[in-house]
Amino acid sequence: MTVKIGLIGAGGIAQSHINALKKVEQAKIVTVFDLNTEGAQKTAAALGARVTESADALLNPEEIDAVFICVPQFARGDLEEIAAKRGIHVFVEKPLGLELESVGRKEQAIREGGILTSVGYVLRYYDTVQQAKQYLQDKTVHLIQAFRIGGSHPAPWWKQQHMSNGNLGDAVTHQVDMIRYLVGEYKEVTAQFGRNTIKTQNPEATIPDAGAVTFSMESGAVGTITESCISTYHSGSEIKIIGPNFFLQLTGNGKTLTIIDDQQNITITSKQDPVYEQDKAFVEAVAAGSGEAILCGYADGMRTLAFTLAAYKAAEERDTVTI
Amino acid sequence: MTVKIGLIGAGGIAQSHINALKKVEQAKIVTVFDLNTEGAQKTAAALGARVTESADALLNPEEIDAVFICVPQFARGDLEEIAAKRGIHVFVEKPLGLELESVGRKEQAIREGGILTSVGYVLRYYDTVQQAKQYLQDKTVHLIQAFRIGGSHPAPWWKQQHMSNGNLGDAVTHQVDMIRYLVGEYKEVTAQFGRNTIKTQNPEATIPDAGAVTFSMESGAVGTITESCISTYHSGSEIKIIGPNFFLQLTGNGKTLTIIDDQQNITITSKQDPVYEQDKAFVEAVAAGSGEAILCGYADGMRTLAFTLAAYKAAEERDTVTI
Amino acid sequence: MTVKIGLIGAGGIAQSHINALKKVEQAKIVTVFDLNTEGAQKTAAALGARVTESADALLNPEEIDAVFICVPQFARGDLEEIAAKRGIHVFVEKPLGLELESVGRKEQAIREGGILTSVGYVLRYYDTVQQAKQYLQDKTVHLIQAFRIGGSHPAPWWKQQHMSNGNLGDAVTHQVDMIRYLVGEYKEVTAQFGRNTIKTQNPEATIPDAGAVTFSMESGAVGTITESCISTYHSGSEIKIIGPNFFLQLTGNGKTLTIIDDQQNITITSKQDPVYEQDKAFVEAVAAGSGEAILCGYADGMRTLAFTLAAYKAAEERDTVTI
Amino acid sequence: MTVKIGLIGAGGIAQSHINALKKVEQAKIVTVFDLNTEGAQKTAAALGARVTESADALLNPEEIDAVFICVPQFARGDLEEIAAKRGIHVFVEKPLGLELESVGRKEQAIREGGILTSVGYVLRYYDTVQQAKQYLQDKTVHLIQAFRIGGSHPAPWWKQQHMSNGNLGDAVTHQVDMIRYLVGEYKEVTAQFGRNTIKTQNPEATIPDAGAVTFSMESGAVGTITESCISTYHSGSEIKIIGPNFFLQLTGNGKTLTIIDDQQNITITSKQDPVYEQDKAFVEAVAAGSGEAILCGYADGMRTLAFTLAAYKAAEERDTVTI
Repeated sequence: MTVKIGLIGAGGIAQSHINALKKVEQAKIVTVFDLNTEGAQKTAAALGARVTESADALLNPEEIDAVFICVPQFARGDLEEIAAKRGIHVFVEKPLGLELESVGRKEQAIREGGILTSVGYVLRYYDTVQQAKQYLQDKTVHLIQAFRIGGSHPAPWWKQQHMSNGNLGDAVTHQVDMIRYLVGEYKEVTAQFGRNTIKTQNPEATIPDAGAVTFSMESGAVGTITESCISTYHSGSEIKIIGPNFFLQLTGNGKTLTIIDDQQNITITSKQDPVYEQDKAFVEAVAAGSGEAILCGYADGMRTLAFTLAAYKAAEERDTVTI
Repeated sequence: MTVKIGLIGAGGIAQSHINALKKVEQAKIVTVFDLNTEGAQKTAAALGARVTESADALLNPEEIDAVFICVPQFARGDLEEIAAKRGIHVFVEKPLGLELESVGRKEQAIREGGILTSVGYVLRYYDTVQQAKQYLQDKTVHLIQAFRIGGSHPAPWWKQQHMSNGNLGDAVTHQVDMIRYLVGEYKEVTAQFGRNTIKTQNPEATIPDAGAVTFSMESGAVGTITESCISTYHSGSEIKIIGPNFFLQLTGNGKTLTIIDDQQNITITSKQDPVYEQDKAFVEAVAAGSGEAILCGYADGMRTLAFTLAAYKAAEERDTVTI
Repeated sequence: MTVKIGLIGAGGIAQSHINALKKVEQAKIVTVFDLNTEGAQKTAAALGARVTESADALLNPEEIDAVFICVPQFARGDLEEIAAKRGIHVFVEKPLGLELESVGRKEQAIREGGILTSVGYVLRYYDTVQQAKQYLQDKTVHLIQAFRIGGSHPAPWWKQQHMSNGNLGDAVTHQVDMIRYLVGEYKEVTAQFGRNTIKTQNPEATIPDAGAVTFSMESGAVGTITESCISTYHSGSEIKIIGPNFFLQLTGNGKTLTIIDDQQNITITSKQDPVYEQDKAFVEAVAAGSGEAILCGYADGMRTLAFTLAAYKAAEERDTVTI
Repeated sequence: MTVKIGLIGAGGIAQSHINALKKVEQAKIVTVFDLNTEGAQKTAAALGARVTESADALLNPEEIDAVFICVPQFARGDLEEIAAKRGIHVFVEKPLGLELESVGRKEQAIREGGILTSVGYVLRYYDTVQQAKQYLQDKTVHLIQAFRIGGSHPAPWWKQQHMSNGNLGDAVTHQVDMIRYLVGEYKEVTAQFGRNTIKTQNPEATIPDAGAVTFSMESGAVGTITESCISTYHSGSEIKIIGPNFFLQLTGNGKTLTIIDDQQNITITSKQDPVYEQDKAFVEAVAAGSGEAILCGYADGMRTLAFTLAAYKAAEERDTVTI
């Protein structure tokens, strides 16, 4: 069975899905929409696809089985709800939104519509991350230390807190998500954010330039997430997960895994393309009518969003916030 | 001038001072006291020193110019006050105590006594740490990420929170102090501590096994400190200090410094013995009657203690605590 | 079946075998001989074993099934031949000797005696080295780069070329052997040795302080071995094995293996004790009457010696020597 | 004074000189020649320079003060001699040629012409390499270990031994040169070269795919150079220089320097552009009429070539060759 796909958004992240979907045998992109009409036409032409006149028109269940929603979090309107009501399966990029109310409403519509969903927490699809999850299944974790430090997304909207939710909300959300995926649910969070440099370097920006987050997990483990989006001479990411008798570390956004315990000392760098693995899993799920191979559905992705929002709230209210 | 020194405490940390003081020309240990009489006698004999019958008797200004207080934080009574009143200069190990009331009283007595003091925040004496301080003088920091992860002090008292103040209070206090020393004063703190493993591994222990601390600085920078005292397969320490145009990192408890900016990319591992540098600075200060070369005096060390206490309070009260 | 073992030599390397054999269920050391009678007695007492009056007396087939020859290469006389003639199985330390004539004669006696032999090329027993061998089975290698750089064995005899065959002959022999084990037989060798520093630092020494060896393999691959025994600030060992589509590296004397190719990028540090694995394999082989699990027999070890001797000859004669 | 420059060759290496010379205040490229007329015109147009009809015509002392000869070693004819005779100062890329006869003749012409020359052993101009040279001035070296492993130059001529002199002659010549520059002159060399993979991978190629070189220095030090030009999963370069009391290492073609001794343990990565430093030194030397700041003149570069040729000869004749 061929899965007919509509693509909403034709920017950078959409292109990475196009490249991945080309290698997925069952996938065929048939329609494209982007507010940038020129971009949509160029993309569609290269794919032998058709441009629709609106996002709403693209969500036509007679034409497509599934939609890839690749516009930023501030620009999605009620697309997920419409798709759910029309029985179109939804792949949507992370993060799921900017507040929980609309995202919760969408989640309900999705449940009611009975559609399959996949959220772009793509790092879950690395074989290294899968191996980490398998390893941690029966381990007691007491400490987690994570960071993601680097530069900014170049788009102006990204530096507006109300459009992107900042670095923690948009980029570090991958680390926030991986911790949940590997160690279980968060319980409480406190946080401090700073604007020491960005306030003079880029006065129009409203996002923080640095974030320091402390959390506890339902299991009793505690940890930190440290992030910056204006670091020129240090960049990278890491999650350390520590128990009394083991050390597990993921670096390079999950690409490289180290496990040390009394039986082994091993470091593996993945050779996989997680975007391909993610998109293939979703397309095959749609073809098979079963979501088992999808590693992050909408309700799951919503819990990751909830943590980010709680961290910002904790900082604003100078309080400990329960997720 | 020879500086006559009395030594209170003859355990592990005292031995490291003895080794260092042997190389300091002006230093001469003349008296020793330890509740463990045998240990005191053995130590004194090796030094050609005399054992006193009490700590109070050791604090004899006719016999000594300075005292090295090398007993743990729970066992110091009012030794610093007595020394201050008798005009004996004081070197005292970190941390300065377990609460601020008695430490504040001691600090006042020291000021009134006009004595010189040096607190064992020994890592400040690394040339690498000095170079870091020099470098950071005119830099704008927005993010700090620190960790110290490893094993426990073997002594049973160390695992009792009311005797040691835990890993954050006793060992990680070095990192807490270095951040202040390099970047300026802390402003606010929140924290979470866990006992996921220690509660079953060592039921009599009352300390946490993991700590996650978030802070802001008076300058506006934010940061995290992550710590564990029961990690078998990962140990080490690191302080990253990040600005928009530089990266500075101290690892190995300050021994190794990396600085990267547009002018340089350099890593230096110190060849110095910071205990020697610290003890020499104190002894020479006593001989010269001037404390300029001492890098951490009592009032300074007290501010480091204040941060640790605030972190524990923040965790207990689930609140943001101002230092 | 219990394998009764006689131990010739009670020095450092013998102690490491004693520690390993304690964990081998079927092994029992029953007799010990060392020219240093006191050392022999102390060792025997700790083992509940008996001291013999000579090495010859120890080689008593009514008392022992196997002998561990743990005296240096200059001190073995014709022990292996005697053991072979008396039907006693032989474990002997590397290197097998200082020239090929006597070693060849011993090898013939061993073949005629039909005994099992194991030579102490212990690094072959690392699981990492086994994995490297497995990986390389069907690979085309074009380049090998090996080094072993560090300090000297403390014994005075070791610095006499005619007693130890120098660093290349005694320590770096492990690397020489691993290359053969992993990539096949050597074909030709050239070499240069220096005495730039040792000649003034230790005028009585006759060994080189540095060696630079170039070789070709029967397969057509070429490579280098670089070694020093007087390096204070750099030490370690490495073997890089390179083909057009893979990179394989062993560091830490074989303990850590890295393999990179289009399918994988993995680094494994062994948790095994190769001395234990080696001694267990030999003892079990003796018990079972089958040498299959022994990874280096006498004839095999002799080929490793042949390479070292050829390298020294090449340097002396300023020639390319065929192995 | 403005130094008027003619540029022979407009390929990749010429472009890197153009970029560097743009930043050198006194430099002005006035004429360009390349057999590829189109390339020459495009390059000249971008520079506001003129294309000459031949290399000979470019060597016009009324138009230029200096020439940059940026054509490969097989394509230089007698350009250096002509320039020398006409009093035009010469910058010429490494390596200087393919055999010593013509290069020696050119060297004589240069001496007789009294012109300034600079050879493109550009790595000498790194501040890190300068610091290494300074450090080694009074040190006794006993061992040198160098490698350069990676891929091939893409040009077909490069894989023809008679046109490029292979990887050792063309790329690894930088490492061969740095060793001379830092530790002094070579004395003897032996070598083995292999073609295990290239003979099937690229049957038309006549260069080796791997080289293993052993050498001694006039000082008595010995060492190895190991190289490959068909390694996909390992690439890099390193020179280790070892004495009894120090370790010095250059990696990244000289960009990163490590020095460890009893006083220091330091790693520095250069921020300099050595092409710029090299070209600036030459242009300023021409302007000033004094070659002091030039780090590699023609006669010096010829000695580096001599080593490469000796290595190939040693391999071919299976002999030890004196440089």
